[in-house]
Amino acid sequence: MSAHVLDVFMLFGDSITQGAWEPGRNGFGQRLAHVYARKLDILNRGLSGYNTTWSIPCLEQCLAKSADKSAPKLRVLTVWFGANDACIKPSPQHVPLPTFVSNLERMVDMVKSPTSPHYSPETRIILISPPPVNTFQRRADLESRNPPLKLDREFETTRSYAQAVRDVASEKGVAFVDVWNLLWEASGQNEQELSRFLSDGLHLNAEGYRIMYEELVSTIAREHPEVHYDNIGYVFPA
Amino acid sequence: MSAHVLDVFMLFGDSITQGAWEPGRNGFGQRLAHVYARKLDILNRGLSGYNTTWSIPCLEQCLAKSADKSAPKLRVLTVWFGANDACIKPSPQHVPLPTFVSNLERMVDMVKSPTSPHYSPETRIILISPPPVNTFQRRADLESRNPPLKLDREFETTRSYAQAVRDVASEKGVAFVDVWNLLWEASGQNEQELSRFLSDGLHLNAEGYRIMYEELVSTIAREHPEVHYDNIGYVFPA
Repeated sequence: MSAHVLDVFMLFGDSITQGAWEPGRNGFGQRLAHVYARKLDILNRGLSGYNTTWSIPCLEQCLAKSADKSAPKLRVLTVWFGANDACIKPSPQHVPLPTFVSNLERMVDMVKSPTSPHYSPETRIILISPPPVNTFQRRADLESRNPPLKLDREFETTRSYAQAVRDVASEKGVAFVDVWNLLWEASGQNEQELSRFLSDGLHLNAEGYRIMYEELVSTIAREHPEVHYDNIGYVFPA
Repeated sequence: MSAHVLDVFMLFGDSITQGAWEPGRNGFGQRLAHVYARKLDILNRGLSGYNTTWSIPCLEQCLAKSADKSAPKLRVLTVWFGANDACIKPSPQHVPLPTFVSNLERMVDMVKSPTSPHYSPETRIILISPPPVNTFQRRADLESRNPPLKLDREFETTRSYAQAVRDVASEKGVAFVDVWNLLWEASGQNEQELSRFLSDGLHLNAEGYRIMYEELVSTIAREHPEVHYDNIGYVFPA
């Protein structure tokens, strides 16, 4: 049996989180695991294909009850959705924008509301907006499949879901990493240029993850310096 | 608080384990985390600089007591030491060969002996031998430091520690990944050629980790197929 020796940094999200250890991408999961070695366990709770509606029952399972004092402390929780919720109808992944907002609020409240059975006031939550979609790349990728598929995401729709994540973070007073705007600015506000940061119009490539990781670490340093890796000691001494 | 949703695959060892998520190396920690996503949590219990003597009390802390039924199941445990134990005197990292052997035996018994408080019969242990030392590379690395350091490891010494790991694995009937021989054969039994697999004469580079990872996965498939990632289902369905 495995004992708890380290507190936890949990990455909750969709495939962009699940794939964050993929060889060759230097994803944020891998990089956090590297810099937090002997400090916090980085747990991959990315669920490829999931939207927020399907993920809520999973988050309930991933969080221990506040009463369970034997469970490891959850120091940081990233919540990164929107890429699948923003699918257009008739995709089964589509979640209407108001539902997406209330789902995100529910996830935050699950940790932050004193009436939640999972109430964990010491957990720092960081909301992350989905990357912008490059519909040129995405369409080409889908059309190359056998059988070819139709475009399932639109640039402006994902932008509005990204804006909703920002609004929820602001309303709930939790930290926010704006991947949508970061990559949009880095591309010079040119959709086709987004291919520098996306592997298939939807998922981040190594350069996309690099920009995201650096902003995440800056956000931790600024908003929650007590959980920055430089400020957490080794559990087993050097 | 973080709940247990996945069983555990623990990587216990020295810096070669701790560094197995380093950007650009595609180390075995990162790659296992990728292929076991939603299946097992890969926990980094690498302790840079440690030898087996210093590590034993840490392993005791990393393993829950058998009586603690709330602790996550430990499905696989890799134990990878020897690179520091094989330092030559007067290095404080030096552990005499007979002590290295008894330390490894103690680690295995901690999990496998019915009289151990950490007895966990369902845990699969995989012992791993240290990589061969390239003393040409290692000497150059140490001499380039400020102040310059003397060579602290010898080719033949590490070879004998690697052989000892094989003997312990055989005696205890646990699986074994022979990194020493794998890299030695891959180099054409030419010490200088080991630079193809080692970054500094001691630690694995991306090519070294690739060979090690592939052998580890083959060993799991052959010796313990029930914990191969293809044979473990997603905890949260696809």
